[in-house]
Amino acid sequence: MSETLQQVLVNGVASNTVAVTDRGLLYGDGVFETLAVIDAAPRLWTRHIARLQDGCARLGIAPLDAVLLAEEAQRVCHDAGRAVLKIIITRGSGGRGYRPNVSGKPTRILQCCPWPDYPRSCETDGVAVRLCRLRMGHNPSLAGIKHLNRLEQVLARGEWDDPAVREGLVLDQHGNLIEGTMSNVCLVQGGRLLMPDLARCGVAGVIRALLLELAEVRGIATAVRDIGVDELAAADEVFLCNSLIGIWPVTRIDDRVYPAGKLTRQLQELLRNYLENEQ
Amino acid sequence: MSETLQQVLVNGVASNTVAVTDRGLLYGDGVFETLAVIDAAPRLWTRHIARLQDGCARLGIAPLDAVLLAEEAQRVCHDAGRAVLKIIITRGSGGRGYRPNVSGKPTRILQCCPWPDYPRSCETDGVAVRLCRLRMGHNPSLAGIKHLNRLEQVLARGEWDDPAVREGLVLDQHGNLIEGTMSNVCLVQGGRLLMPDLARCGVAGVIRALLLELAEVRGIATAVRDIGVDELAAADEVFLCNSLIGIWPVTRIDDRVYPAGKLTRQLQELLRNYLENEQ
Repeated sequence: MSETLQQVLVNGVASNTVAVTDRGLLYGDGVFETLAVIDAAPRLWTRHIARLQDGCARLGIAPLDAVLLAEEAQRVCHDAGRAVLKIIITRGSGGRGYRPNVSGKPTRILQCCPWPDYPRSCETDGVAVRLCRLRMGHNPSLAGIKHLNRLEQVLARGEWDDPAVREGLVLDQHGNLIEGTMSNVCLVQGGRLLMPDLARCGVAGVIRALLLELAEVRGIATAVRDIGVDELAAADEVFLCNSLIGIWPVTRIDDRVYPAGKLTRQLQELLRNYLENEQ
Repeated sequence: MSETLQQVLVNGVASNTVAVTDRGLLYGDGVFETLAVIDAAPRLWTRHIARLQDGCARLGIAPLDAVLLAEEAQRVCHDAGRAVLKIIITRGSGGRGYRPNVSGKPTRILQCCPWPDYPRSCETDGVAVRLCRLRMGHNPSLAGIKHLNRLEQVLARGEWDDPAVREGLVLDQHGNLIEGTMSNVCLVQGGRLLMPDLARCGVAGVIRALLLELAEVRGIATAVRDIGVDELAAADEVFLCNSLIGIWPVTRIDDRVYPAGKLTRQLQELLRNYLENEQ
């Protein structure tokens, strides 16, 4: 059991490999999830599995056996304290060329990985981020899905290597703000929570959806719509979110400084309470 | 040695698997080539390897050892008559999340597959194709590269299962004609060879580039530019090309009929002669 790859199950069997004919490798033909694991329990399980099922449905991959996935998740995470569970579902092998095999058998890969060593200060003090040069392409058929075609993220993340810059923000071809390379981005403007519309590109994050729900319950005004880069510049507060980082206030975008503001702090608190009471 | 997977070398070693940590699987972080093999010799080798190197360079994957690749290609193809050589190069394992590991070691996968059983009539009589609903997203950073992010092709190819329809044509978000799901598409209009501009999306095929060269040598006027769907409808001739099919005249797009015309026939002849004299 290595330090970087604690345990992997491929279709329920301990293995570190997949077939070279797997369409996940050949075409990025699949979806994935990244879950926080605390005390051997994957957090927000129902929400992550719902998104996985939704992604499979949109790509025409056969529905997953959620009970089997939960059993396998328990097996790979059983001795984990704080860790990351990565679940990959591919369309499996077969089909002819790009043509998907409708009766094909998906491949399940569950992998328990070490918790990333993000400093606590990212959450408390906030982070510096940059605006990436790469622009995301529009594809409504794929928008929102956490699929395995992630070259845009790889190229965007490859733009910098300054460890002090924790994330890169990415715009679409029209100059609208979409997301971070590994996180969703949210703005606060005039007491309202603003999130980019992800109908044409981007990954619809589980924490992003949860924050919209929590805000609504608390009577915080929200809007999901196109957000230009000028609006980003003019925002009162900016923050990042995903299942591993929770919420990180953004305190700098390139040379522009932002406060770790009041609504960001309130949402951090709401999220923390929700996660503590979840299990 | 199975019928569908004759022989595979992964980093020079006979193997049918890759690591679950390979970025080709995780992110589609790599490139590939599909070569025709005749009498154990991969055709248009230099052109395919040049495109592979170019794709690697654009993605920031380390340059390939072309001599080693040629040796491995000979090993997997040595007892092949007519076959297909698929070469996949991924960024390998490692890096942190999307961030590419600049000193990482790419993965090489060489696989000799059976020749597809396309009827001879596709080349002689032409084929029926359809216009796909899926629209391709623009991404100049990835345009032209034969990379492993191929969900657009998978979704487009999944739109039909009528075996009489041999290919689907795909437009971009602006309604410009881009390519087929597995081929490039070319038009003939007023004696001129027209090819879609692939600066924003699409795969810049080896045969497409070769046809442009052959046409130029023969004094056939060519243009590479945006082509609207109305121009497709009004074309004198339409044809498909790739390394396995050569040139297939398109004789029907949905309900519209086209002739297998004179310039298409001339280009078929030019291509056949070029390939015969190549080796």
